[in-house]
Amino acid sequence: MNVLILGGGGFIGRKIAAALAASGILRGKAVTGLTLADLAEPAPLDAPFPVTCRAADITDRAQLDALVTSETQVIFHLAAVVSAHAEAEFDAGMQVNLFGTLNLLERCRALGTCPVVVFTSSLAVFGGDVPDPIEDWTIPNPQTSYGAQKAIGELLLNDYSRRGFADGRGFRLPTIAVRPGKPNRAASSFMSSIIREPLNGEPAVCPVDPEFEHYYLSPRRCVENLLKGAELDAAALGQQRCMIMPGQRLSIREMIDAMTEVAGPAPAKLIRWEKQPEIEAIVQGWRFDYRPRKALDLGLAADAGFAENVGFYLEDDLPAS
Amino acid sequence: MNVLILGGGGFIGRKIAAALAASGILRGKAVTGLTLADLAEPAPLDAPFPVTCRAADITDRAQLDALVTSETQVIFHLAAVVSAHAEAEFDAGMQVNLFGTLNLLERCRALGTCPVVVFTSSLAVFGGDVPDPIEDWTIPNPQTSYGAQKAIGELLLNDYSRRGFADGRGFRLPTIAVRPGKPNRAASSFMSSIIREPLNGEPAVCPVDPEFEHYYLSPRRCVENLLKGAELDAAALGQQRCMIMPGQRLSIREMIDAMTEVAGPAPAKLIRWEKQPEIEAIVQGWRFDYRPRKALDLGLAADAGFAENVGFYLEDDLPAS
Repeated sequence: MNVLILGGGGFIGRKIAAALAASGILRGKAVTGLTLADLAEPAPLDAPFPVTCRAADITDRAQLDALVTSETQVIFHLAAVVSAHAEAEFDAGMQVNLFGTLNLLERCRALGTCPVVVFTSSLAVFGGDVPDPIEDWTIPNPQTSYGAQKAIGELLLNDYSRRGFADGRGFRLPTIAVRPGKPNRAASSFMSSIIREPLNGEPAVCPVDPEFEHYYLSPRRCVENLLKGAELDAAALGQQRCMIMPGQRLSIREMIDAMTEVAGPAPAKLIRWEKQPEIEAIVQGWRFDYRPRKALDLGLAADAGFAENVGFYLEDDLPAS
Repeated sequence: MNVLILGGGGFIGRKIAAALAASGILRGKAVTGLTLADLAEPAPLDAPFPVTCRAADITDRAQLDALVTSETQVIFHLAAVVSAHAEAEFDAGMQVNLFGTLNLLERCRALGTCPVVVFTSSLAVFGGDVPDPIEDWTIPNPQTSYGAQKAIGELLLNDYSRRGFADGRGFRLPTIAVRPGKPNRAASSFMSSIIREPLNGEPAVCPVDPEFEHYYLSPRRCVENLLKGAELDAAALGQQRCMIMPGQRLSIREMIDAMTEVAGPAPAKLIRWEKQPEIEAIVQGWRFDYRPRKALDLGLAADAGFAENVGFYLEDDLPAS
């Protein structure tokens, strides 16, 4: 099984690669080669099969064509210009999120080999005035350019799959928490920071009320779900290749209580409560009431309580100090 | 008010142009100029304002840029590669339906004048395994490339509007009946033929059962709705610029009964009933249970019974014999 990860330098891409290196198997067959591609060349990875690391820009069709060959059987397409970036730089978002995805699908079509394409969409495709709960058949009504570009990617993935040009499957990711690494400028950044920094022994600021609710998934389960997504039988996907990836609806209070349950009372004391109306204004508009029925029926899973997310962070991502 | 109709040579474009020539008014202001553009140069039109007819291909950005200028205030974007064509020629559909629409929106963005863009989407955006009835917030889950390209057009229209690059409004057209002109190779062609040909004194074939149900709108109401759509206040559209255009759910039997009511018993005798399984297989997959709530709330309308559609055909489109 020859695998390519676009966005292979990101934390999800890296974890997929590590999981493949550990299992050596995908879709019931031995992995025979893995290519990690990202804008900056990904760091090398130890694996029981050859790993190639490449710097490449998916907006450049020639660079993409060099990555996706007739040998490529499974592609994880995680490469994206994220939400705030796509909102600030419209052309950058269109180029990577829309045309980059189209370049990939057109390459698959030209090859005629119908590779499996696992596409990370986002719950950001949902928004605006649509009724709760959000089901798999609720209209993507994005209120950001990032969400619009992901929703277009879903439609392209579906149509290229329907026509037999690719064997696509798309998953609308919940907010990933506890996300490893550093805070970033995303409005959702605090949703990991308020857990991660205290567990690292560092202070954090919570800009919203403890009752604020949102929809979360751990990095570990996200990777399990994407691998499961690659393994699904195409026939089981039916007439819609994209679905909500399961998550948990949680309040900030529930997340902090879970942290205390796992790690004792010290970390929660490192959180400073400081309302930030500009953050609150953005995140209050986000939805949290999802019914990921199709994915659950297909065997994808959410975490069983936020204590799991905290435990996974401690096991998988706590910096060696 | 300076108006451009892309697809101005088609029967809907032509009827919009005729309506503007008759009223001389759009969005409460006098029409000061009208450009009709299509692949083949549209025929001249008598009007109380200057009318320019142009042959142009919207897939060519330079040709499009020449049509859409800083003077252009309202654009009706009806240009499309239709269903069967887009299915047979994938690239042609992508070029016109996706990139042509994108060219138009990019041109609007470059101009910075935020013109009104009225986009004809289609009920072909809906399909597959989604629950009935189909509401404005049901996921577009197209099962044709045409439907996928129209659904992508909707997402682009919404995002370019949200960002202030254009003032878009999109309408998912029902099957138009009674469509003037000749039968074509569309699977839906018989839905007009079985009424139009008998009213013209010619024979027609009905390839499905009299109980077959579908969702219809007359050309006259469609044009009224598109003009109304151009006049809507942007604020009334909210966070989703695209909606189902109202139609009527009718069985073939109800349509023929309405024809008999209006035109007497002779036309119905010109229909030959001859099952065509390949046509039936396609049209049985189409949906007919729609709830166009948003459009109705905004003042768009369906026909009041199919007798209206028949009457409109006789008044507006019956060939002079």
